Amino acid sequence: MLFILAGSVAAQDKPVQGQQVERWDVFELTLQGPSAGNPFIQVPLTATFKQGDKTFTPDGFYDGNGTYKVRFMPDTEGTWTYETRSRHEVLNGKKGSFVCTPAAAGNHGPVRVRAQYHFAYEDGTPYFPFGTTIYEWPYNPKERQDQTIETLKNSPFNKARFLAIPPFKPKYVEGPLKLTQFPFEGTSKENWDFSRFNTDYFKHLELCVERLRALGIEADFILLRPYDGAWGFDKMDMETNERFIRYIIARFGAYRNIWWSLANENSFMRHLSQEDWDQLFQVVEKNDPYQHLRSIHNADKLYDYSKPWVTHVSLQYYNAVKAFGVSPLLRDIYRKPIVHDEINYEGNVSRRWGQLTGEEMVDRFWIAYVGGSYATHGEATEEGWISNGGTLSGTSPKRIAFLKEVVEQGPKEGLNPLDQYYLMNAAGKYGEYYLYYFGKDTPKNWTFELPDDALKPGMKFKVDIIDAWNMTVTPLKQVFEVEEVNRYKYRDKKNTKIKLPNKPYIALRIQQVDTGKLNDTKETIKRNELTDEVEP
Amino acid sequence: MLFILAGSVAAQDKPVQGQQVERWDVFELTLQGPSAGNPFIQVPLTATFKQGDKTFTPDGFYDGNGTYKVRFMPDTEGTWTYETRSRHEVLNGKKGSFVCTPAAAGNHGPVRVRAQYHFAYEDGTPYFPFGTTIYEWPYNPKERQDQTIETLKNSPFNKARFLAIPPFKPKYVEGPLKLTQFPFEGTSKENWDFSRFNTDYFKHLELCVERLRALGIEADFILLRPYDGAWGFDKMDMETNERFIRYIIARFGAYRNIWWSLANENSFMRHLSQEDWDQLFQVVEKNDPYQHLRSIHNADKLYDYSKPWVTHVSLQYYNAVKAFGVSPLLRDIYRKPIVHDEINYEGNVSRRWGQLTGEEMVDRFWIAYVGGSYATHGEATEEGWISNGGTLSGTSPKRIAFLKEVVEQGPKEGLNPLDQYYLMNAAGKYGEYYLYYFGKDTPKNWTFELPDDALKPGMKFKVDIIDAWNMTVTPLKQVFEVEEVNRYKYRDKKNTKIKLPNKPYIALRIQQVDTGKLNDTKETIKRNELTDEVEP
Repeated sequence: MLFILAGSVAAQDKPVQGQQVERWDVFELTLQGPSAGNPFIQVPLTATFKQGDKTFTPDGFYDGNGTYKVRFMPDTEGTWTYETRSRHEVLNGKKGSFVCTPAAAGNHGPVRVRAQYHFAYEDGTPYFPFGTTIYEWPYNPKERQDQTIETLKNSPFNKARFLAIPPFKPKYVEGPLKLTQFPFEGTSKENWDFSRFNTDYFKHLELCVERLRALGIEADFILLRPYDGAWGFDKMDMETNERFIRYIIARFGAYRNIWWSLANENSFMRHLSQEDWDQLFQVVEKNDPYQHLRSIHNADKLYDYSKPWVTHVSLQYYNAVKAFGVSPLLRDIYRKPIVHDEINYEGNVSRRWGQLTGEEMVDRFWIAYVGGSYATHGEATEEGWISNGGTLSGTSPKRIAFLKEVVEQGPKEGLNPLDQYYLMNAAGKYGEYYLYYFGKDTPKNWTFELPDDALKPGMKFKVDIIDAWNMTVTPLKQVFEVEEVNRYKYRDKKNTKIKLPNKPYIALRIQQVDTGKLNDTKETIKRNELTDEVEP
Repeated sequence: MLFILAGSVAAQDKPVQGQQVERWDVFELTLQGPSAGNPFIQVPLTATFKQGDKTFTPDGFYDGNGTYKVRFMPDTEGTWTYETRSRHEVLNGKKGSFVCTPAAAGNHGPVRVRAQYHFAYEDGTPYFPFGTTIYEWPYNPKERQDQTIETLKNSPFNKARFLAIPPFKPKYVEGPLKLTQFPFEGTSKENWDFSRFNTDYFKHLELCVERLRALGIEADFILLRPYDGAWGFDKMDMETNERFIRYIIARFGAYRNIWWSLANENSFMRHLSQEDWDQLFQVVEKNDPYQHLRSIHNADKLYDYSKPWVTHVSLQYYNAVKAFGVSPLLRDIYRKPIVHDEINYEGNVSRRWGQLTGEEMVDRFWIAYVGGSYATHGEATEEGWISNGGTLSGTSPKRIAFLKEVVEQGPKEGLNPLDQYYLMNAAGKYGEYYLYYFGKDTPKNWTFELPDDALKPGMKFKVDIIDAWNMTVTPLKQVFEVEEVNRYKYRDKKNTKIKLPNKPYIALRIQQVDTGKLNDTKETIKRNELTDEVEP
């Protein structure tokens, strides 16, 4: 007997009957078929989904107990038809259709690269990554997972990095936190069957991805990782790695909030060469019908992020966010979005990677964004947010939320470095918006000078003094009218020096008055009263 | 009638009769052949040089007036035999032999990449590049050329960047500086024959390369360039570019001091794509029997220096030498030697690229070298050293000479960044040699702490305080014995803070006392009297 079940797993935990699916949600086709032999080996079926000239052919996957599934993320509204193809006759040639309905509020589709160095959702809504790191949150007890979701809900973070395979830790082998589900069938290293997947394990991970999706958080899903003392998941051969990755794509590819991070600290998986990683990237590129974002996170040897299948740089290089001017260089080298996905962690652990003060974390964030790049947060305390999720106790998250507001109020295409071969600390959009950040410097004043690009004499600007640590925005009363100085610079006609508070972590936001373009954006930042911090 | 002339053009301006050539000098075979038609089109002959299993087959070239030449740089002593091959019967099958004699003092062979990020001459002698820029010196009047050579002789510079084609400037078209020789036959844009080379033009350039060689200066020879208002040498099609490059390789490849710089500011030659540059690199790679160093110098778009045919990075990115920590990152990205071949120029011209103070130039040099990379000087005054050569008036060259001595006295394999994911301003060799540079910071003291690598409790170190601007080396009397602090650090047992002069441009040199290895090197730097700048 053969069942055909089709439904959406959209915002619910389980598939739902129905022939309607919201745009960019998951349409799921369920078929019953043979359970004999090993249905995990080779892709057991595919389905071709069509609407007009559009065609997608995602892989299906075996979900255990004679159940086969194909998931599909429709990207346009209207009727879609499908037809399955399988070497098993009972799974082959199954046809049907469903209707894709408009995306609900908050559903903007998958995130894409936009304007070379930035991101946007597929519906055009800007997406500025503000990530956090919660490597093992799916492998923690249910209550902790719930707590993590609750914490994220009240955080600025819209991207979460976590692992598709837990790292080996003694606590996961014995005791109250012992893990019972693993990616592969088997219960310990003595009896893994690397040719059969544990479907319950993946169903739980799907739930985790769905919970993030419900919060509008991108799942930066790390497929492989080192740090495996005894399980051996970091030593799998290339055939197993490929099968694992294709299975994950078949299961998770239809989730709009998925990003593929091929590995964490890939260079520590010493048995895999650069060419092996190239090959795994190409497996993802070839088999993901939706072309979700793809990257890889380096350890001691940088993967060549300029390779064509890498959509963005997911860098671990702490010094790159300690110095101004580095992110613009990285953009020029890779010509892709730069995401500093590991910049050390706020915390107090004995390892030096987890000893940042809140101030230092926030400073590194600002240096990243004013360099036209993005950064990812992490917290390393005894509780171990970066490993387990739970709650946050650091002082940086609310400042990161403040920075996020500043960035969201800026140019909707994102911040780009300005005059980047000479200036080091300015980003924005020529003629309209300038964000200068002074980091640990404590300037007493700033001479109103802007790079000449897109300026004309007589243009008028307003200025806010931003305190990145104290989260204040202090608008100046004065309006600044510019005149040309030389081929490189314009200055305020009155040759104004703006008084600055002589403290670290100060920024200046300078916006053209006339265009008003940028004033349309929501302003939720607490503004100080107007002051007149200007030296004549 | 057929002449066979063979000789060395070693240190002389003209070929000399003789069957002996010094190792890494130029053996030149001269043949007479047909002058009808266009002997420049296609390579008219090659010769295969053999010694035992070794075989080199350099292209020959047409030198005008029925004269054909093949040049060869023998890399081992002893007898070499040769045989020519040509489609012209009179040039074909000519055989002979010569004896390669030991290299004379000062002749160390061509420069090669060594230890991934550094250079050495082929005989193993370390080569630390300290370049300068004299783009048009060959196209200046003879007296100015002589002056340039005299200036270089008394300078620290051991690499000179200059152009194989002059840039278009009105002064070169009319007036006392009018040029009469061009790479191609013809006298003006109205009558260039891009299929025929002007042999006198190249003979003069050879003389220039020889004059640099006699001073031990590498010729960083820039084959193509933009900035051509009217001549059109920057708009040549790919066929012409390739023929031009192969002709240059045939003429210049046998000079041991040649480096190939495919272009200056290549991205400004808008008609050539990245793929075109790939192709030109491959032309060089394929046709240079000696595999001289190959790079290209970027403008607004960086060439992908990770491509396999690029031997080292020849970067133009000013901010990369303004911030600590960037060169180590560049090394990690490209995994090749990094040469900052344009870091702005010391000078006072109206363009901001030529407005560095001596202090700023020297600071950028130190930041480059303490980042495990190299830099190239330039001076932009009215006299225009960077364009014309002549004399130097800046304050940086003697400080660069001082830095060069420091570097030469350091590890002979070169300076490598230390603890580079966390530290930003230290280079050297773990356990033996540490160079910290503080740039514009003006520290009052420094706590004696070193990264743990290669250290053992009880190891002893001596310390010099170096003033990079005032060119002094002040050894401290105290010997520092280290103990472990934690997994990352060692410190002086007495927990010493070293007093520093509270000035910018200060460095610390810390050397292990026991090994004595580094003390063998020549010490020519003026040393201050021993002082005792230590806080107990």
